[in-house]
Amino acid sequence: MERIGTDTLRFSKRPAVLSWASVVGDKESQGPLGKYFDICHPDPSLGMESWEKAESHLQTEAVEKALQKGGLEPENVQYIFAGDLLNQCISSTFGLRGLGIPFLGQYGACSTMAQTLGMASLFVESGAASCAAAVTSSHFCSAERQFRLPLEYGGQRTPTAQWTATASGCAIVTVPEKAPSSGVRIRDVCFGRITDLGIRDANNMGAAMAPAAASTLLSYLRDTQTRPQDYDLILTGDLGKVGSDLLQQLLRREGMDLSGIQNDGGLMLYHRQEQDVHAGGSGCGCSAAVLCSLVLRRLQAGELKQVLFIGTGALLSPTSTQQGETIPSIAHLVALENSRQSSL
Amino acid sequence: MERIGTDTLRFSKRPAVLSWASVVGDKESQGPLGKYFDICHPDPSLGMESWEKAESHLQTEAVEKALQKGGLEPENVQYIFAGDLLNQCISSTFGLRGLGIPFLGQYGACSTMAQTLGMASLFVESGAASCAAAVTSSHFCSAERQFRLPLEYGGQRTPTAQWTATASGCAIVTVPEKAPSSGVRIRDVCFGRITDLGIRDANNMGAAMAPAAASTLLSYLRDTQTRPQDYDLILTGDLGKVGSDLLQQLLRREGMDLSGIQNDGGLMLYHRQEQDVHAGGSGCGCSAAVLCSLVLRRLQAGELKQVLFIGTGALLSPTSTQQGETIPSIAHLVALENSRQSSL
Repeated sequence: MERIGTDTLRFSKRPAVLSWASVVGDKESQGPLGKYFDICHPDPSLGMESWEKAESHLQTEAVEKALQKGGLEPENVQYIFAGDLLNQCISSTFGLRGLGIPFLGQYGACSTMAQTLGMASLFVESGAASCAAAVTSSHFCSAERQFRLPLEYGGQRTPTAQWTATASGCAIVTVPEKAPSSGVRIRDVCFGRITDLGIRDANNMGAAMAPAAASTLLSYLRDTQTRPQDYDLILTGDLGKVGSDLLQQLLRREGMDLSGIQNDGGLMLYHRQEQDVHAGGSGCGCSAAVLCSLVLRRLQAGELKQVLFIGTGALLSPTSTQQGETIPSIAHLVALENSRQSSL
Repeated sequence: MERIGTDTLRFSKRPAVLSWASVVGDKESQGPLGKYFDICHPDPSLGMESWEKAESHLQTEAVEKALQKGGLEPENVQYIFAGDLLNQCISSTFGLRGLGIPFLGQYGACSTMAQTLGMASLFVESGAASCAAAVTSSHFCSAERQFRLPLEYGGQRTPTAQWTATASGCAIVTVPEKAPSSGVRIRDVCFGRITDLGIRDANNMGAAMAPAAASTLLSYLRDTQTRPQDYDLILTGDLGKVGSDLLQQLLRREGMDLSGIQNDGGLMLYHRQEQDVHAGGSGCGCSAAVLCSLVLRRLQAGELKQVLFIGTGALLSPTSTQQGETIPSIAHLVALENSRQSSL
């Protein structure tokens, strides 16, 4: 591995994404990506006795499905990197405790899928692991209860609010020799810095996260001396409509045009207007499910050749908001490519 | 780096601990290690308007002090690995947002200092960074409010309960060439698996964590073909009195005697009886402050030559306890050695 510029790590082995899986709820299965998910649950409780247990089970299923699709047993995976939005990350710890895989909990709010995928690929690249997994989840009902209001209250949402996805995605990364038929390689990672431009509205996290996405993307483009046009897709997750518009605006100021190149997990997961999700989807599981369904599938097929996956996270808590704090944000970037594609 | 046995990573570069710092509250400064801490705060609020902001400030100060002692500026550090116990890890995100160092949030409950230190050393070993920092914190008042009861309620504590330390510790890891006078090297890391033996009492986390500590320690000893007697100190953090006794008991069953070798951050930080901390100290900052004061100092001086630092974490939340769940636990191990010592 080589450090490029100030912030980017370029992998020489190019770890392969061997397999992936996504598990979603009913609303997500009715969105535009419905047919690409591995498992859809019509019942948001998944038959469990609490929303938190249901969310844990999303992670269990996503990992089990990804293992199965990769022809792996848990003992073939040396590390699992996992995270979620619940206090003390209990979806991950309870969802994965039965697997017996060395566990490294990650917290980057909605950027966590990029963080876990970046970590898994760095461990494989460095020789720390020959196979590592990345998984995240979120659940509308557990998130509403914890971050906002009880569902029964029926509170109104502001137009800038995003809808926490009931979803989980898992990707398994391995050394290329062990994944000869994989079409997806990880070329670079660029872990971000905390950005805080003073946004205080916890119902407008897209606005808080857009500057972090811009900062990481600009660092990466500078480090690699590339332009947005060099990529087929810049997948952010999850800025929603408000944050995506702001990101495009911030990049225009730098003379770069993202239109037609950037898309956002929160915009892709739902029919935004018809499904009434306001500014779009969000949550650790949103970008994870979008990545681990359509996007990796299209990369594998060669329909996408160069993809930047930029996870964006708002690093707040209800307590920090109650104490009048602003919203620090972060974005982590993972550069994926089709393996039959000559590298940039 | 080389994988040894099933779970251990052995570093060939042996990353160096360049500098470290600890920041504590009044009670901790009156304990047996009082004179070894860099900064002691008589006022638990640190002059801030909330306990959470005070805890964030502990991290800010620990990192700034460690940078200063290492003769570094923030821009010399390529990654910072940080974590804490607060919901959504806000001590870390708010405490470190001003530094501008690429940030990777970690969650392993009270095992987080071993996790962050293991990550920082792995990044340095792999060439991903030439310098990386690890920091964690906890605060008695923010933890009581979040996990137990408001301080004003004056609830009684059970004898098995542990006292959350008001403390933060930061260690800075770098390539050996950049730390010629450092006496402390990191030889191995062994990240643990989640263990859950069915303990349900959230006031007895030592008992919940002891099996995780035993599991990781036994894996490491098996992988490296060493015995407890090969180490000057096996520093767990934080099992307290109950958990330490259980760990020793579990190891005796395997024919190993830890007495006189194992000590625990939660037992070292306070005069346990006189300071009325019941089973001992706990919290992400407890083992961090013990490590980043006396233990690293004694390693640097060569008074300790081989140390295993085993962070132990109880991966529960108040919600999981309210839902009748058991307490999954984890332990991560970092093997430290004096650099003038021939390696095991």
